[in-house]
Amino acid sequence: MSQFSHYNEDGLSKMVDISSKSATSRTATAECRVRISPRLYEAIHEQSLKKGNPLPVAQVAGIMAAKKTAEWIPMCHPILIQGTDLSFKYEPVKDGYMLVIGATVTVDGNTGVEMEALTAVTAAALTFYDMCKAVDKSMVIEETLLVKKTGGKNGDFYHPRREKMD
Amino acid sequence: MSQFSHYNEDGLSKMVDISSKSATSRTATAECRVRISPRLYEAIHEQSLKKGNPLPVAQVAGIMAAKKTAEWIPMCHPILIQGTDLSFKYEPVKDGYMLVIGATVTVDGNTGVEMEALTAVTAAALTFYDMCKAVDKSMVIEETLLVKKTGGKNGDFYHPRREKMD
Amino acid sequence: MSQFSHYNEDGLSKMVDISSKSATSRTATAECRVRISPRLYEAIHEQSLKKGNPLPVAQVAGIMAAKKTAEWIPMCHPILIQGTDLSFKYEPVKDGYMLVIGATVTVDGNTGVEMEALTAVTAAALTFYDMCKAVDKSMVIEETLLVKKTGGKNGDFYHPRREKMD
Amino acid sequence: MSQFSHYNEDGLSKMVDISSKSATSRTATAECRVRISPRLYEAIHEQSLKKGNPLPVAQVAGIMAAKKTAEWIPMCHPILIQGTDLSFKYEPVKDGYMLVIGATVTVDGNTGVEMEALTAVTAAALTFYDMCKAVDKSMVIEETLLVKKTGGKNGDFYHPRREKMD
Amino acid sequence: MSQFSHYNEDGLSKMVDISSKSATSRTATAECRVRISPRLYEAIHEQSLKKGNPLPVAQVAGIMAAKKTAEWIPMCHPILIQGTDLSFKYEPVKDGYMLVIGATVTVDGNTGVEMEALTAVTAAALTFYDMCKAVDKSMVIEETLLVKKTGGKNGDFYHPRREKMD
Amino acid sequence: MSQFSHYNEDGLSKMVDISSKSATSRTATAECRVRISPRLYEAIHEQSLKKGNPLPVAQVAGIMAAKKTAEWIPMCHPILIQGTDLSFKYEPVKDGYMLVIGATVTVDGNTGVEMEALTAVTAAALTFYDMCKAVDKSMVIEETLLVKKTGGKNGDFYHPRREKMD
Repeated sequence: MSQFSHYNEDGLSKMVDISSKSATSRTATAECRVRISPRLYEAIHEQSLKKGNPLPVAQVAGIMAAKKTAEWIPMCHPILIQGTDLSFKYEPVKDGYMLVIGATVTVDGNTGVEMEALTAVTAAALTFYDMCKAVDKSMVIEETLLVKKTGGKNGDFYHPRREKMD
Repeated sequence: MSQFSHYNEDGLSKMVDISSKSATSRTATAECRVRISPRLYEAIHEQSLKKGNPLPVAQVAGIMAAKKTAEWIPMCHPILIQGTDLSFKYEPVKDGYMLVIGATVTVDGNTGVEMEALTAVTAAALTFYDMCKAVDKSMVIEETLLVKKTGGKNGDFYHPRREKMD
Repeated sequence: MSQFSHYNEDGLSKMVDISSKSATSRTATAECRVRISPRLYEAIHEQSLKKGNPLPVAQVAGIMAAKKTAEWIPMCHPILIQGTDLSFKYEPVKDGYMLVIGATVTVDGNTGVEMEALTAVTAAALTFYDMCKAVDKSMVIEETLLVKKTGGKNGDFYHPRREKMD
Repeated sequence: MSQFSHYNEDGLSKMVDISSKSATSRTATAECRVRISPRLYEAIHEQSLKKGNPLPVAQVAGIMAAKKTAEWIPMCHPILIQGTDLSFKYEPVKDGYMLVIGATVTVDGNTGVEMEALTAVTAAALTFYDMCKAVDKSMVIEETLLVKKTGGKNGDFYHPRREKMD
Repeated sequence: MSQFSHYNEDGLSKMVDISSKSATSRTATAECRVRISPRLYEAIHEQSLKKGNPLPVAQVAGIMAAKKTAEWIPMCHPILIQGTDLSFKYEPVKDGYMLVIGATVTVDGNTGVEMEALTAVTAAALTFYDMCKAVDKSMVIEETLLVKKTGGKNGDFYHPRREKMD
Repeated sequence: MSQFSHYNEDGLSKMVDISSKSATSRTATAECRVRISPRLYEAIHEQSLKKGNPLPVAQVAGIMAAKKTAEWIPMCHPILIQGTDLSFKYEPVKDGYMLVIGATVTVDGNTGVEMEALTAVTAAALTFYDMCKAVDKSMVIEETLLVKKTGGKNGDFYHPRREKMD
């Protein structure tokens, strides 16, 4: 007879109990970057995409995904996010453009919203990809990271790659 | 009185009608890379993460997310995916390790599964991040892209950055 | 290079931050009316509908939809509703009958439940339509409105068309 | 001992078996009308709503809701919709304006898409309400109906109130 | 550097590819039994439960859960079920009563609906438990099993415990 | 004209208002048992199942289902669960083995988590069934029950069948 109770100790996952953590005001900001070709950049700005202008749709997708983060991420706690705002900016880079997507999520709760912010930018980036892929499938989502978080007992966090920006 | 019918032409999004496309066998493979620090790599392999071993959970998250792609991506058509397989591999890189996540999705339908494959690797990467973030929040999801797709009237696609791999 | 940060000011949507609002006891009551033909009214009461008696199903649909309001309405905040009750009444009108559907939702939270009450009556009305449409597709959902709301810093609201009823 | 098998005959609902119906090309068009005050109409066009411009968000909400119709409506069959398009138009009426929302859904399947089209316009209307309710809560969703359906063994349907429009 | 590709062979799960399976007509019937005390049985029949009569709600819950089976069960394929019917019967047993819940699901597809039928009876039983638990929490869901399945290349299945019933 | 307002008193369900209940620390533990044949037990331990090792997947399924309990159970209140842990153990019994699945859910809220714990073990059992059914479809989920609950105004509960275990 095999015993799986030990299994829990060295392998099986669980949703960590957070009931002893206190509810505080928390925020998280995430960012991702989508590399796009000059041809795609022009198509977007000539509004010649079959599915429409991608940014308003990506924005809504990011906000809706943030609310459902605990459905994507198995060990993530459900939480009632209280504010979500996304930003979009095209930046010229060598050989094309970079769409920089940012998201800030706020909550007054007993767990952080890092995953909600990361999920928001990710869903926005995938939606952007979906709406543009008929023109160019070679887009690359280059750098998805947590820019910063504030609140919670472990203190604030600033990503080493973005520290100067803040 | 304002008229929004024109708006549809140059801005508002729609879900493109695919009823005239024929059902064929299609596959898509996506990939993403998560950069992790030596400290995190060790913590994973010493199984000292509070939430458990991240890979089996990331695997399940990727498969479940692939099935719900049309919930995340607003203009994406619902589709009955028929097979999904993920792979995980740690590769040493300068200053740490890279977790390479791959996903292949198959379908017999009248639209492609690019978004499903991209969603699968993305959800797996976010889940990995979630399970490891107590140790290190500076992970970066570095490169999410469509490696290849087959089937459909527009022919096969191979990503320029991966062509040699295939 | 285009700048989309301004876009946020005059176009792109966001989920408004409610973290500074205080949690208070709130209620909202919504109503909608479905116009039905004498033939359909008789079919319902002779229990000859293929899908069964529509009201218990509409009731459950309304309650379940209220819980998922933030999934349907993109900028709506997630909230833990604490009570939901629906009522159904057939009233004779000129040339047929009117099914009057009411829903009251209660919460102790920092945002209102107007959308939850409106979503509940709407889902109930659509479910009623679905279960009766084999007999008559010409039903019209005639008047969906917020009857009243209580609680919150902006004070109570009573709809002008229903003020006398209250 | 009570017997509930009889209950099924005269009350309990079921999801009707459609496996003997053949897959054909089907469409459905629904419409609803939201009555708005001059004050709200002006606020929308001056872009002074806190949550942003409501129409692009309502559009996305309508399309996403159409895909999830079988989650709202208990006895509704799941179906893979193949195209969805919404239209929005403001019309001046006595004492204000009417926002006319239309949705057409297409499918190649063995059940109709009436509920999907009705769900699309309804979710769009509720989203519009949500985004505008800070300015005016007295909006009324006045007339939600199925304009027409085509395909299926029972033939086409045109709503008596809209027959001339078609 | 560790290699997880082998892991896939002897541990990590996948969603098996069914694209080579042919679409045929399939059915599955599942059953479960809820043991209830005489006191609860009386409370149900005197309609003194705070949440209302449990059976119509359990019926709807079972049907809605069947449609979402692939959301509960990670490796289960999404499928468009075409008919679902539940039955409920109270049977007297030693020391109380047994509520027998049955569900039959039909589909024309390339994978079976065993999980959908099992999910339907399970969701119905849990809903029944929820609606009755204020009176008695000691109910036991005693026997959940697949009664039979038909269709598919592996032939029909009849559960050994129920073979005589069929 | 029929009146359905009375119907609410003796039949139609509602979601009971819990806004007057106080938020306290609560836990619930549920259990279920899956009877498996010696042949299946061997297949699992030889890792010869096509879909992979069932326990890590069942674990994730149980945790994800617990978070979505209010989606499956119509009259169940939404709640933010704060911890979920599952355990698995194979026990030899006459003619085979029994997989014992346990789940404990914790919350700090104004309603209990009995349904969340029962949903967790049920989803884990169904997932286990799904991953093993290619080898043996005659598994029986034998005994699903609430082992205990603590917290809330009605005091603690221990199931009569398990009292000695605690």
